[in-house]
Amino acid sequence: MQSLRNSGTCDATRLAACARAIADAGRKLGAQGLTPATSSNFSMRIDAEHAAITISGRDKGLLTPDDIMVIDMSGRAIGTSSRPSAETLLHTQIYARFPHAQAVLHTHSRTQTVASRLFAEQGMIRLAGYELLKAIAGHTTHDTRIDVPVFPNTQDMPELVGRVDAWIASGQPLYGYLIDGHGIYTWGRDMAEAERHIEAFEFLLGCELDLRRLRT
Amino acid sequence: MQSLRNSGTCDATRLAACARAIADAGRKLGAQGLTPATSSNFSMRIDAEHAAITISGRDKGLLTPDDIMVIDMSGRAIGTSSRPSAETLLHTQIYARFPHAQAVLHTHSRTQTVASRLFAEQGMIRLAGYELLKAIAGHTTHDTRIDVPVFPNTQDMPELVGRVDAWIASGQPLYGYLIDGHGIYTWGRDMAEAERHIEAFEFLLGCELDLRRLRT
Amino acid sequence: MQSLRNSGTCDATRLAACARAIADAGRKLGAQGLTPATSSNFSMRIDAEHAAITISGRDKGLLTPDDIMVIDMSGRAIGTSSRPSAETLLHTQIYARFPHAQAVLHTHSRTQTVASRLFAEQGMIRLAGYELLKAIAGHTTHDTRIDVPVFPNTQDMPELVGRVDAWIASGQPLYGYLIDGHGIYTWGRDMAEAERHIEAFEFLLGCELDLRRLRT
Amino acid sequence: MQSLRNSGTCDATRLAACARAIADAGRKLGAQGLTPATSSNFSMRIDAEHAAITISGRDKGLLTPDDIMVIDMSGRAIGTSSRPSAETLLHTQIYARFPHAQAVLHTHSRTQTVASRLFAEQGMIRLAGYELLKAIAGHTTHDTRIDVPVFPNTQDMPELVGRVDAWIASGQPLYGYLIDGHGIYTWGRDMAEAERHIEAFEFLLGCELDLRRLRT
Repeated sequence: MQSLRNSGTCDATRLAACARAIADAGRKLGAQGLTPATSSNFSMRIDAEHAAITISGRDKGLLTPDDIMVIDMSGRAIGTSSRPSAETLLHTQIYARFPHAQAVLHTHSRTQTVASRLFAEQGMIRLAGYELLKAIAGHTTHDTRIDVPVFPNTQDMPELVGRVDAWIASGQPLYGYLIDGHGIYTWGRDMAEAERHIEAFEFLLGCELDLRRLRT
Repeated sequence: MQSLRNSGTCDATRLAACARAIADAGRKLGAQGLTPATSSNFSMRIDAEHAAITISGRDKGLLTPDDIMVIDMSGRAIGTSSRPSAETLLHTQIYARFPHAQAVLHTHSRTQTVASRLFAEQGMIRLAGYELLKAIAGHTTHDTRIDVPVFPNTQDMPELVGRVDAWIASGQPLYGYLIDGHGIYTWGRDMAEAERHIEAFEFLLGCELDLRRLRT
Repeated sequence: MQSLRNSGTCDATRLAACARAIADAGRKLGAQGLTPATSSNFSMRIDAEHAAITISGRDKGLLTPDDIMVIDMSGRAIGTSSRPSAETLLHTQIYARFPHAQAVLHTHSRTQTVASRLFAEQGMIRLAGYELLKAIAGHTTHDTRIDVPVFPNTQDMPELVGRVDAWIASGQPLYGYLIDGHGIYTWGRDMAEAERHIEAFEFLLGCELDLRRLRT
Repeated sequence: MQSLRNSGTCDATRLAACARAIADAGRKLGAQGLTPATSSNFSMRIDAEHAAITISGRDKGLLTPDDIMVIDMSGRAIGTSSRPSAETLLHTQIYARFPHAQAVLHTHSRTQTVASRLFAEQGMIRLAGYELLKAIAGHTTHDTRIDVPVFPNTQDMPELVGRVDAWIASGQPLYGYLIDGHGIYTWGRDMAEAERHIEAFEFLLGCELDLRRLRT
């Protein structure tokens, strides 16, 4: 965790706790097959100006605190020459737009990838009538719906940031989003809530695919 | 297991054994992917007037005795300020209607959710011709059938209790039931039998979905 | 392993080795999900007159030597009041018909059950063109075929024994068979070969189901 | 690792490191279900003239250094009477044609087998538009495509070697290939890259099968 020693501007105890929580989440999500082939990236807010995030290219199921680095809220590496995830700006955007968000998880399961490609053309997946919608913060009944947008994939992060902002600006609620041919982003008030959101979306997308196979 | 210390009205040894059995069952069912995103709830009958049940919102794959509390048979928390599962009345109903039932398990797998949605309109799933029907207590041949009702989902527990009672009142046997967009409830003479019933229903519902995919 | 102590008629060392091999195989097959809800049964030939077999009703993924008992070659329990598997006669038949067989495995996976129901009407599944056919003893090329019969299910074991004998009498080779709505039986020159056969059949039946879904 | 002691012509430290890396990779790939029934084989380049490769017929999920042997670059066993994998020439071909390749992995998953059979007639599978294409060395965007050839299966290794050479001679890039009814071959600059390639191809082939099921 060399990068962490050099990042004197943030609280060492909080930083170490974030790094541990990220590594633990990675192990769990990796064991569930959600992070194939060094894909996926995870972060936590350290304080108003910093976040801890996974270093690019590591196996996300085998993370140790040494695989976590510090960035500022514009996505610049702090106190390290390591390179943060290529998608760092999507993390800092969430921290900027959602003040309650303390953890952001991006995974890349087969279900997420397939669902994103199937629904890319219509631009979103509507989830409705599932008891497990109650696992998404703020929902107390199955008798509701959550629309998960599917944004076109691009290697141009500012373009993606713009699409997420446009969705938010439209006034539609946002609990997570898919990128076409890629995976999901979701977040929470703490790591436990972010993990619950990942588990719930993975489950619900899987049900949608199964029902589509079975109803035709 | 603070709640357990304060519940002087029931036998401490029996209570501790129930809490251990519930936590062990949760670990097994969680490892099989049947309890996503803090869903599911489990209970055991302690004595004629009390049951042990999982506290609301806990990760059911990581239960310890501290995640178990005591309720009376009308579903009220005993000796604790913790909140029992929102579906507590479905557990106490089983203990009231089936005197032999000592353990009730509710899980929430993708197979269960998908099967419940597919068969909701016809109100039940008929399972017939499977050797594994012999895993459901009282069955000694594959040459039989078990009808599993699918009740509409609601957040109104007395309404659900009423639907279960109506099925029982109709004279049809009941070994477990699904709730639409949700999961399954089943039970047994002890925790081992309840677990065997969950495993068998999960297996049989999965076969039904596969056959439906393959036969069209 | 009480039953084993009382079975003075067979070699204690060989018996203990068989019991260990059966328990180990059960753990592996159980972890792969092939033995749901106390289904499945396993045996090994001890000597010309005895076999070790799983006691009825045990969880096959959690076997210890205490869950194994001795039978003679007509399927009678030796030195114990435990009840052997209801399908014991299918095991002793294999030892009688195939002198090289030292281990018999019967599992009950979802793939096996679904395949058996789909192909029950045509009475067999033809496996051809797979490299993994080379995992079945005596095959050195993928350019071959293996016919796996599917027999109707019955609780009458002599009837099933008769169907297996009729297949053998017809001169067709037999490496394993399915029972409709049930699972598979296969065997080997030792436990390792029997396990390899189970793994290969499970894989090949899964491929057949996938191809059927994908080709229509 | 008896064979390794007798193979005085190559560096013992490098050899031991290769054997460990191969055994570790086997455990990981076996746990993911990619190596059923003693199928699959793995190798690493030791030096310009030698490679370490799995001995034929071993359980690839339970490899120890004793299951690894040394071959020369024409596929002959060195310092041992063990028999190398029947497909050894496919490994040495990769080392000869791709000087950067240090590790070659051949696995045999259900997804790989089913995909190979489905696409055998058209001779290749085109993977395009997936973010995970970036996991294949040399790719920095999802906006690309990789063609994976599917060669007819044969037990005649020189024939297969010829087909691979013909593809290379045609000038098309080659990152891995499937054999019909069989599995995949891929490789990397080190074992970590080869493993990442296996994981990525397994994922991408699985997505292609799912989309085919869902789009019809």
